[in-house]
Amino acid sequence: MSYLALSDEELLRLLSDDVPCGDLTTETSGIGQQTARLEFRARQDMVVCAIEEAARLFTLSGATSDVHVCSGQSVSQSTLLLEAQGTAQSLHRVWKTAQVLVEWASGISTSAAAIVQAAAPVSVACTRKNVPGTKALSVKAVRAGGATMHRLGLSESLLLFAEHRLFLNETQTATVARYKRAEPERKLVVEVANVSEAMLWAQAGADVLQVEKFTTEAVAECRAALDLAKLQTKLAAAGGVNAVNAVDYVRAGADFLVTSAPYTAPPRDIQVNFFLA
Amino acid sequence: MSYLALSDEELLRLLSDDVPCGDLTTETSGIGQQTARLEFRARQDMVVCAIEEAARLFTLSGATSDVHVCSGQSVSQSTLLLEAQGTAQSLHRVWKTAQVLVEWASGISTSAAAIVQAAAPVSVACTRKNVPGTKALSVKAVRAGGATMHRLGLSESLLLFAEHRLFLNETQTATVARYKRAEPERKLVVEVANVSEAMLWAQAGADVLQVEKFTTEAVAECRAALDLAKLQTKLAAAGGVNAVNAVDYVRAGADFLVTSAPYTAPPRDIQVNFFLA
Amino acid sequence: MSYLALSDEELLRLLSDDVPCGDLTTETSGIGQQTARLEFRARQDMVVCAIEEAARLFTLSGATSDVHVCSGQSVSQSTLLLEAQGTAQSLHRVWKTAQVLVEWASGISTSAAAIVQAAAPVSVACTRKNVPGTKALSVKAVRAGGATMHRLGLSESLLLFAEHRLFLNETQTATVARYKRAEPERKLVVEVANVSEAMLWAQAGADVLQVEKFTTEAVAECRAALDLAKLQTKLAAAGGVNAVNAVDYVRAGADFLVTSAPYTAPPRDIQVNFFLA
Amino acid sequence: MSYLALSDEELLRLLSDDVPCGDLTTETSGIGQQTARLEFRARQDMVVCAIEEAARLFTLSGATSDVHVCSGQSVSQSTLLLEAQGTAQSLHRVWKTAQVLVEWASGISTSAAAIVQAAAPVSVACTRKNVPGTKALSVKAVRAGGATMHRLGLSESLLLFAEHRLFLNETQTATVARYKRAEPERKLVVEVANVSEAMLWAQAGADVLQVEKFTTEAVAECRAALDLAKLQTKLAAAGGVNAVNAVDYVRAGADFLVTSAPYTAPPRDIQVNFFLA
Amino acid sequence: MSYLALSDEELLRLLSDDVPCGDLTTETSGIGQQTARLEFRARQDMVVCAIEEAARLFTLSGATSDVHVCSGQSVSQSTLLLEAQGTAQSLHRVWKTAQVLVEWASGISTSAAAIVQAAAPVSVACTRKNVPGTKALSVKAVRAGGATMHRLGLSESLLLFAEHRLFLNETQTATVARYKRAEPERKLVVEVANVSEAMLWAQAGADVLQVEKFTTEAVAECRAALDLAKLQTKLAAAGGVNAVNAVDYVRAGADFLVTSAPYTAPPRDIQVNFFLA
Amino acid sequence: MSYLALSDEELLRLLSDDVPCGDLTTETSGIGQQTARLEFRARQDMVVCAIEEAARLFTLSGATSDVHVCSGQSVSQSTLLLEAQGTAQSLHRVWKTAQVLVEWASGISTSAAAIVQAAAPVSVACTRKNVPGTKALSVKAVRAGGATMHRLGLSESLLLFAEHRLFLNETQTATVARYKRAEPERKLVVEVANVSEAMLWAQAGADVLQVEKFTTEAVAECRAALDLAKLQTKLAAAGGVNAVNAVDYVRAGADFLVTSAPYTAPPRDIQVNFFLA
Repeated sequence: MSYLALSDEELLRLLSDDVPCGDLTTETSGIGQQTARLEFRARQDMVVCAIEEAARLFTLSGATSDVHVCSGQSVSQSTLLLEAQGTAQSLHRVWKTAQVLVEWASGISTSAAAIVQAAAPVSVACTRKNVPGTKALSVKAVRAGGATMHRLGLSESLLLFAEHRLFLNETQTATVARYKRAEPERKLVVEVANVSEAMLWAQAGADVLQVEKFTTEAVAECRAALDLAKLQTKLAAAGGVNAVNAVDYVRAGADFLVTSAPYTAPPRDIQVNFFLA
Repeated sequence: MSYLALSDEELLRLLSDDVPCGDLTTETSGIGQQTARLEFRARQDMVVCAIEEAARLFTLSGATSDVHVCSGQSVSQSTLLLEAQGTAQSLHRVWKTAQVLVEWASGISTSAAAIVQAAAPVSVACTRKNVPGTKALSVKAVRAGGATMHRLGLSESLLLFAEHRLFLNETQTATVARYKRAEPERKLVVEVANVSEAMLWAQAGADVLQVEKFTTEAVAECRAALDLAKLQTKLAAAGGVNAVNAVDYVRAGADFLVTSAPYTAPPRDIQVNFFLA
Repeated sequence: MSYLALSDEELLRLLSDDVPCGDLTTETSGIGQQTARLEFRARQDMVVCAIEEAARLFTLSGATSDVHVCSGQSVSQSTLLLEAQGTAQSLHRVWKTAQVLVEWASGISTSAAAIVQAAAPVSVACTRKNVPGTKALSVKAVRAGGATMHRLGLSESLLLFAEHRLFLNETQTATVARYKRAEPERKLVVEVANVSEAMLWAQAGADVLQVEKFTTEAVAECRAALDLAKLQTKLAAAGGVNAVNAVDYVRAGADFLVTSAPYTAPPRDIQVNFFLA
Repeated sequence: MSYLALSDEELLRLLSDDVPCGDLTTETSGIGQQTARLEFRARQDMVVCAIEEAARLFTLSGATSDVHVCSGQSVSQSTLLLEAQGTAQSLHRVWKTAQVLVEWASGISTSAAAIVQAAAPVSVACTRKNVPGTKALSVKAVRAGGATMHRLGLSESLLLFAEHRLFLNETQTATVARYKRAEPERKLVVEVANVSEAMLWAQAGADVLQVEKFTTEAVAECRAALDLAKLQTKLAAAGGVNAVNAVDYVRAGADFLVTSAPYTAPPRDIQVNFFLA
Repeated sequence: MSYLALSDEELLRLLSDDVPCGDLTTETSGIGQQTARLEFRARQDMVVCAIEEAARLFTLSGATSDVHVCSGQSVSQSTLLLEAQGTAQSLHRVWKTAQVLVEWASGISTSAAAIVQAAAPVSVACTRKNVPGTKALSVKAVRAGGATMHRLGLSESLLLFAEHRLFLNETQTATVARYKRAEPERKLVVEVANVSEAMLWAQAGADVLQVEKFTTEAVAECRAALDLAKLQTKLAAAGGVNAVNAVDYVRAGADFLVTSAPYTAPPRDIQVNFFLA
Repeated sequence: MSYLALSDEELLRLLSDDVPCGDLTTETSGIGQQTARLEFRARQDMVVCAIEEAARLFTLSGATSDVHVCSGQSVSQSTLLLEAQGTAQSLHRVWKTAQVLVEWASGISTSAAAIVQAAAPVSVACTRKNVPGTKALSVKAVRAGGATMHRLGLSESLLLFAEHRLFLNETQTATVARYKRAEPERKLVVEVANVSEAMLWAQAGADVLQVEKFTTEAVAECRAALDLAKLQTKLAAAGGVNAVNAVDYVRAGADFLVTSAPYTAPPRDIQVNFFLA
C-alpha cells in the first residue's frame, strides 16, 4: 500500500488551501532559515494510512523526509512514523496539513480494520458514501484496513435498487436476463427490503442480494431460505453494520458485509515534535 | 447562507468521482428516459447545509430542482428540503452524490450549532482541521451552524506556537513588538501551555491567549490572573472542546471557544423518495 | 444517450486548444457581428455520437442550437443533425471543433454498431485501449453503438494476466479462492494463451476466460472442452476481433466478444452549411 | 524531439483515467512488492513517438526507466525501445497506459513519415483535425514524422474560407489589402473551390491558395495558370491527401500538401515483456 | 470584441482568489439578503475592455447584469458601463474583482489605442511580454485597442534571434532556404542589431526584419538601404516603442511597430456606485 | 523568501501559454541538441523577486540551474542572478517566460521596497488590487519588498465600507459590538471619508480607520482629534499613496500606509546572455 493516492498537484492543492500566500507567522518571526528536525509519532494504537502522502508533502516543501512505516501497517502507541528535516519555513508550512491528513486517513483505516477483524473470515466492503471530495484517499484507507470497496461508483457495477424497479414493468426473470446478456463480465446485485423480495430475486438469478437494514434474525431467515432452495446467490448485509454488530451478521449467515462506518470514524491522534537541528 | 461554496466545476468533479463513464445500471435497464419526481426530507432534526449545492447538482444533470429551505436553517424531522424533477437518468445519476453531500455537511452544521447554543453568549470558532480537501464546504457548514472560523490558514493570521518560539532568542516583549509593528491590522494569538506562560505573554501584549487542553480549573485560574492584572488579553479555550463541556469553559471565564469537533460529527440522515411523474 | 460526456470545462478546453486567443481571421475581416444560421448534416450513413456536446459548444460560444437526433441514433446520409444560429463570430469560433467532435465520435459508434450487428445475439465489449485522453467520450460512443465496456480500468475489475501469474507460486485453485473471497461482488476474468491453460483455469473456478488471439478453431475447441466438462465458465474472444470476423467467433462458440477496433475507425463525414440569417 | 509534450499533471490524468483507485488485480494478488523488469519492443517497423512520455509514466509510478530511442527515430521490428524496472505494483499500474500511448502516437508519426517520404522534396502540413483532446501529443507526433502543422488553430493564422466570404461585400483586392495591413507578419491563405476562384484570389494578392479536394488535373491546371500569370502565390493541395496520392499532387505542381490522414492511422504494435528481477 | 476571454472556470478562480471561503464582512453584518443596484462608470476617458467578463462575474454570483458598452469601445468620462442588480451578498462578493478586472484591462486597451492612433496608418503589434498568467485577457485588450499580436508564442511563428544564430554554422541564404521549405505558410522574421546585419538577412530572403532598439536614424538608414536594393522585406521597429515616439519610427520608414508598452500601462479608474433597490 | 509561490503545474501553465506545441523556430533550425549556458544579470538596481520560479522553469524544461541571489535581496546593476545549462532546446523554450517573470515580479518588489524605505519606521501594506490572476506571486513580491498585505481578500478580514453601511440601520456602537462579538480574533477596519466620520467610528470602537484619499492635512487633523480623545484607534492612510508622498502621510501621523502602487510598477530589466557550452 505504498503508492501515492494523491498526485503532487492534489497534495499542493491541500497545502494551498491552508497556505495560499505564504506562512505569515513564520515569515514575520524571521526564523524561516533556521534548520530543524520533526517527527510524527502515534499517540494511540492505529492502522496507519497516508504516511506516504505526508512525507511527500514535506518533500514538496523543500524538506527531506523518511517514512518508518507504510500504509496498512498496524502500530502501537508512540511508534515513530515519519521524520522530516529542513528549514523552519519548510516544516512549519506543511506541519498541520500533513498531520491532519494522517490523522484523518488513519481514522478510516483503523476503523475498517476493526470491522474486518470482527467479521473474519467473512469479507468486508465499504460503500461509496465517503466524505465528498475524498474518494481516492478514502479508498486507499479502506484497503489499508483490509476491507475492499463495495462499488466505486455508478459506471462499473450493477446494483438494482427499488428506485430503479419503480420504472420497470416486467418479471424479475426478464430483468435479470437482460442485465446478464448485456453485461457478461459483471455480477448483478439487487437491494431488497424483506425476505420474500429477496427470494424472488434469488430465484430470478441475481448474483448478490444486498439486504438493507435487516435484523440479524431476518438475515438468518433469508440464509435458511436460500439454503433450502439450494440457491448460490450471495447474501450481503448492509445498513448500520459496524465493528460491534459485525459478528452477529456473520453468525446469521451473511456472505459478506457492506458498511459506511469507517468514513466517520474519529481521527487517530499523531504527536508532532520539533527539534533544533 | 445561500451562496454556492462549490463551483460547477467542483460539483461536476464530485459527480465524476462517482459516475466517470455513465450510469451502468440505469442505462442497461432502459428506463432512462422515463420521468420522475424525487424529494429529500430530513430523517432527523438538523441544521441544514449544502442543500443549494445538492440542487445545483440536479440542475447540472438536466433535471429541475427547488430548494425549500436554505443552508443555516434549523428544521425538524420529515421537513421537505428539496424537490427535483426530470428523467430517471438525470435523477439516478445525481441521487447519492447529492444526498451524501447534504448528509455530511449538515452533520457539521448541526454539530457546530449545538456547541454554539451551549456556549452562548460566548462565541465559537472552528479550527482549520477539516477533513482534507473539503475546506470551502466545511467553512460554509461551520458558519451555517452559527460558528466562525478560528483562522483560515497560515497566510492571514498570526498564531505563535511553542514550535515557533523554539527558534526565537529574545524576550516576549520584543517578539510581540516585532509582530505588532509588522502587522498592524492583525491580532497576535499565542498558544500557551500553562498559566504562567499565559501571563508572560499577556503582559508582553499578546491580543489573544489560546489555552490548549487546559482543565476548566486552569482556565478559571488564568481568568482570575488576567483580571487581577487588569489585562484586556482575550482568553480562548481550545483542545477537546465540544457541546458537552462548552458550558464549563464558558463558566470558567473563556472569552471564546475553539473547537474541531464538528468536522467528525456523524452525518445527518436524509430520506430520499422517488415518484413516477 | 443524451447526457453530456464532457463538462463545460472540458468542452471549453477543446475550444481553447483551437482558439486560445480569439479567431484572427473572423475578427480581422470585420464580419463578426453579422448573424447567420448553420447546419450539420450527415454526409454518410452513421450512428451519431457527440451531437449533444457539439450543440453545447455552440451554446457556450453565445449561439443558440437545436439537436435533431440524439447520440445512439442511426441516421442515413443527408439527415439534418443540428442547427445553430448566432453571430458569425460565435459560429466560426466553434465550427470545426464541433464538427471534428461529431465526426470522430460517430466513427467509433458506427464501427461499434457494425460489430454488434455482426455478433448478435452475442454481446460485444470494447477494451480500455481508447485514444489516450478520450475516455469519457469514447465510452459514450461505445455505448451509443450498442456495445458495452470490457472493463473501465484497473480499479474496478479483476483480469488476471500471465504477467501477474509470473509472480505467483501457488495452484490455480488457490489463486481463484483468494480472489473470490476478497472480492465477492466481482467476476474473475483470466486471460489464457491456449486451450489447456483455459481448461486449467476453468476447472479452478474462473468466471470468464479471455482467449487472446485464438483462431476460431481454437475457440471452438475450447467451447467443446468446456461443454464436455459441464463448466459454466464464460468464453470471451479477444484480440483482432472486428466486424468482419465477429460472426466466425460467435459461431465458434464465444459467449461474448472483446474488441478495440472501434477506437481507430475512420471518422464519419459531416457536411456543414452556413446561411446568412 | 525529446521534450515532453504532456506535463506530469497530464500524464497522471491519463493514468488516473485508467487507475482512479488502485490496481485491484495486483493488490488482491499480493504480488505488488516483488520486483521485475519490463521492456517495450517494436512489433513492426515504425517511426517512434511518445516514448519519453511512456518512460516518464513509469518514473511517476515509482519505477526507474531508460529510453533506448527518441521520438522521431525510425526503427525496425523488434527494436528495444524502453526498459523499466521496479515493483510489480509500479509496473502493472502503468503498463497498458504507457503502451497505448506509444502505439497510438507512433501510428500518427509513422503515417506522417510515409506521406513526407512520398511527397519529398515538397513539404507536408497536417491539419488541426486531430482527435479531440489530443492536440499537444498529436503535434509532437506530426513533427516526429517530419511533417509540420498547417495551422495550430484560429488564433495565429489567416485562412479565409467561403464561409467567411459569405459575409463580405467587397472586391477580393479590398479584402486582401485589409488583411495585409492588419497582419503584416502573417501570410494570407485562401481556400478555393475551383481554378477560376483560385486565379481571382491569386491576382488579388493572396499568399497561399488552399485548393480543397481538387483532382490532380485541376491542380495542374491551376499551376499552369499561376505560372502563366507569373504569380508567386503558393499552391497547397488539401482534402483527401494521403501516402498513396501524395506523389500525384506533387507532380501536378502543388507547392506543399495539407493532410489529416495521420490522425486516423492504425496504432503501431508494441510488444511488452515482463521478467522477474 | 464581445466574446469572453475567460471561461467561467477562470472567472470563478479569480473570484476564489479573493473570496475563498465567503465574504466575512458582509455575512457578519447580516445585510446579505437586502437587494441593491450597482453601476460602473468611467472616471476617465478610456477604451473599455473586459466589461463582458465583469458582467459575467456578477451573473455567476447570482445577480443580474447589463453591459452598456462593449470591449473595444472608446468612452468619455462618466459613461455608464455596466449595471448589476441583486442581493447585497451577490454584489459585494464580486465588486472589487470585477472593478479591478475592467480597470486593468482598460488600461492596456487605452494604451494600445493611443499607440495605434499615433502610428496610423502603420499598424501596431504587441509582444508576448504580457504580465505572466494573463495572456488570454491581455490579447483581448490589445485587440480591443486596435493593435494586433506580434506573435502568440513559440509554437506558431518563426522569429530568428542572435541567440539562435549562435548555434548555426551556415550562410544566411542557407538558413532562410531551410526555414522557407519547412514552413511554407509562415513568414520568417529575423531580429537584427544593426543596419549591415539587416541588409545581410534581407538579401538572404527574410520576410521581416525586426530592428531592436534602433534609433530612428538607424531605422531611416535601413529603410533607405532596402529601398535602394529594391527589397520587399518588411521593417519592424521594436524595443522601447511607445505612444510618444511611435510617430518618429513611422516617419523613419518602419512598416509596422512592435511594442510591450501597453502591458504596464496604469489602470483606468472605474467609479462604482451602490443604490438601495 | 526562497519558497516557490507557483507550483510546477502553474509554472508549466505559464510555459504552455507561450509554447503550447513545441518551439517552432528552434526545432526547424535543427540546433536543439547543441548545449549551451545562459545567465540572467540585473540591468538595473533592483530588489529581486521570482528568481526561484525562473530557475524551476529551467529545471522543468530539462536544463540545470543555479540561483545566485534569492527573492527579497537587493542587488546592483550587472549582478549575476541565475545561470542555466542545457540543450539549446531546453534553454530557448524557457528563456522569455523566465525572463518576463523575474522582470515583472522584481518591478513590484522594487517599487514596494521604495515605499517601505520612504515610510520607515511606519509599515506599509499593499491592497488586494493586484493584476487579475497573479495573486500568489504578487503577494510574494510585496513581501520580498518588505511590505505586508493589507488583506488577502474578503474571507479573512473585516473592512467595513460605506457600501456596507448603506444597508445598516443602527448606531455605530451597535455595529461595532456585533462584529467584535462575532469575530474575537480579527480587527475591525472601517473606511471613512472625512474626519467627523472617522471620529464617530473611533469612538464606537473600531480598531483601524482607513482614511481614503485624505489630504495630508486631513490626516493630521484626524491624528490630532484621536490623540485629543485619547483613542487607540490606528490610522491607515490609503488611496494614491506612493514612494513620493509616503513620507508626508507618515509625518501627518498615519500609523501605517496602504497602497496599490507597486502592482503597476514598470518591470525591472534583466540581461540574458547565451554562451556555447
